[in-house]
Amino acid sequence: MSLWDEIHEQPDTVRRVVDANRSAAGEVAALIGAPDIASVVIAARGTSDNAARYAQYVWGSQHHLHVALATPSLYTLYRRPPRLDGAVVVGISQSGESPDLVAVLREARCQRRPTVAITNHPDSPLAMAADVCFELRSGEERATAATKTYTSQLAAIALIAAAMGGDDAGLSRVAGDVARVLEAGEQIAHAASQFSDDASAAVIGRGFNLATAFEWALKLQELAGVCAMPFSAADFLHGPVALVAGGLPVLAVAPSGTPLPSIHELLEHLRRNFGAKLAVISDDARSLALADAAIPIAPISEWLSPIPAAVAAQLFTYYLTGFRGRDPDSPQGITKVTRTT
Amino acid sequence: MSLWDEIHEQPDTVRRVVDANRSAAGEVAALIGAPDIASVVIAARGTSDNAARYAQYVWGSQHHLHVALATPSLYTLYRRPPRLDGAVVVGISQSGESPDLVAVLREARCQRRPTVAITNHPDSPLAMAADVCFELRSGEERATAATKTYTSQLAAIALIAAAMGGDDAGLSRVAGDVARVLEAGEQIAHAASQFSDDASAAVIGRGFNLATAFEWALKLQELAGVCAMPFSAADFLHGPVALVAGGLPVLAVAPSGTPLPSIHELLEHLRRNFGAKLAVISDDARSLALADAAIPIAPISEWLSPIPAAVAAQLFTYYLTGFRGRDPDSPQGITKVTRTT
Repeated sequence: MSLWDEIHEQPDTVRRVVDANRSAAGEVAALIGAPDIASVVIAARGTSDNAARYAQYVWGSQHHLHVALATPSLYTLYRRPPRLDGAVVVGISQSGESPDLVAVLREARCQRRPTVAITNHPDSPLAMAADVCFELRSGEERATAATKTYTSQLAAIALIAAAMGGDDAGLSRVAGDVARVLEAGEQIAHAASQFSDDASAAVIGRGFNLATAFEWALKLQELAGVCAMPFSAADFLHGPVALVAGGLPVLAVAPSGTPLPSIHELLEHLRRNFGAKLAVISDDARSLALADAAIPIAPISEWLSPIPAAVAAQLFTYYLTGFRGRDPDSPQGITKVTRTT
Repeated sequence: MSLWDEIHEQPDTVRRVVDANRSAAGEVAALIGAPDIASVVIAARGTSDNAARYAQYVWGSQHHLHVALATPSLYTLYRRPPRLDGAVVVGISQSGESPDLVAVLREARCQRRPTVAITNHPDSPLAMAADVCFELRSGEERATAATKTYTSQLAAIALIAAAMGGDDAGLSRVAGDVARVLEAGEQIAHAASQFSDDASAAVIGRGFNLATAFEWALKLQELAGVCAMPFSAADFLHGPVALVAGGLPVLAVAPSGTPLPSIHELLEHLRRNFGAKLAVISDDARSLALADAAIPIAPISEWLSPIPAAVAAQLFTYYLTGFRGRDPDSPQGITKVTRTT
């Protein structure tokens, strides 16, 4: 099974999460949505950490939950775990193997806090340490770079939000939105071909799609050998803009939604004042028109847009990896399961 | 007043925080250290966000507080602020001007939560929105890139920890430690000279010095035009290591302390298996011996090491900026005060 296959499985894997896991989502929602719960602490590493960023905005904006990323080192290296009063603790990990994430969930149980695992492996140590396991059912992920498990994690987070009483109208359509991105492969390949000589890039997103910017950057680093730096569009003017003044290309995740006007304004500024080279993932014609490389996605509710946007970013990166003379199925130096202590 | 001057003012500015602000630290400590407080939410952007990362480890490890970074967009753009039950909310900002940070503190007051501002400007909107203001007294910061206000913010966070009943033995010596780093300018210039042709780099830290890695990377981006990517040493094997396999140099913050063995092992791995080019800030002879560019600092308690380590990183970046033909007093494209909404 190659990375290409796993990218193209995603209409099925996303649909599987949405259709088959409503009862698991209900169990998680009962824990997280309980009236005495004000905050969620998420323990995750790598790609799963980016799924956690998505949860910050989905559960935060729809359910007024304060969602924070854990600092696992305090639990393991320093053995000085923080108090988790009032929090549900959620571990997100494809393999469910990483000892530091397991340590965070075990500490939460010692403190009598509710715990959830979102993982592809219901027999893993992480799942065993949790009160409730949301199984991703993505099938085995063989490629070193995570793709289908990332979008499954996002779909799980969205489904849990819907189970807490949110709007789930778009959820049943999101697998179709992913399929439409995959049908645009040729256009995305053309976009990627324009960046084959760029060894570095800034990747910009905001709000729900800050997660997409971080995940796009991580894929570019591990597959395409691009020094990709993810930024919130809000932080970008604090310093990193100097790199664009020096010629750094900018990749932006800018679907329609609340942050679009501010991101559009930023992209116009970068274009006009620095002649920045731009690639843009969007459904917005004005933003796509600013780009050297336009990566269109279909219109979709903002809160669900990170799922098809991530697939567009994966496909862009897949093609770019080939154009840069690398093998997407053999990234250098990486092993599939990383056990951090 | 130039960046060089502000970097060299830091023994004085750090001493000023430690000596003159014990009563402000006590007021903040009374709020944060109250028995019904389990968590702290910090609102910050840019350099101040890196100071917030330091607070996560200092207040977390010494006082079992769960310290989380706010997602200001939820308060401003989306107008869906999370519930802040049980939290003290701290805004950190040199200027105290950024409307999104002010919005987080105002929302906290609406929710009847205690609020703190750590700022150089006690008349700023951020200070006005807070119950207690910790004034940094760093003097006007004229250089575009923040240096002295960053180390003042770290010193403030450390002083507040001490006022909550921590160990403050090292605090009175830290200004001297900063002075010793500045005396090593020639050696640091030599280290920087070896990286003048590197347009990109990974910057690694863990625990207390994860903040230093992020701040070093930000300075490299805004001043030296280096595509610098900060990483936790724990996340590094999840993907970014592929870039090192492709020749990316690695800058590491590795003073003696709990994470040192794991960082040392990572650096040895990068050196042995990928021939990685390394710069290392450390007091540990074995770790310095691995480096192409050794940046020694004096031995110091791990929890205070981010203060002199940040100064070493600033000085390295200052020299590197010159070697790369840029003017550290005129970074391209950046304005001093950024007002994010």
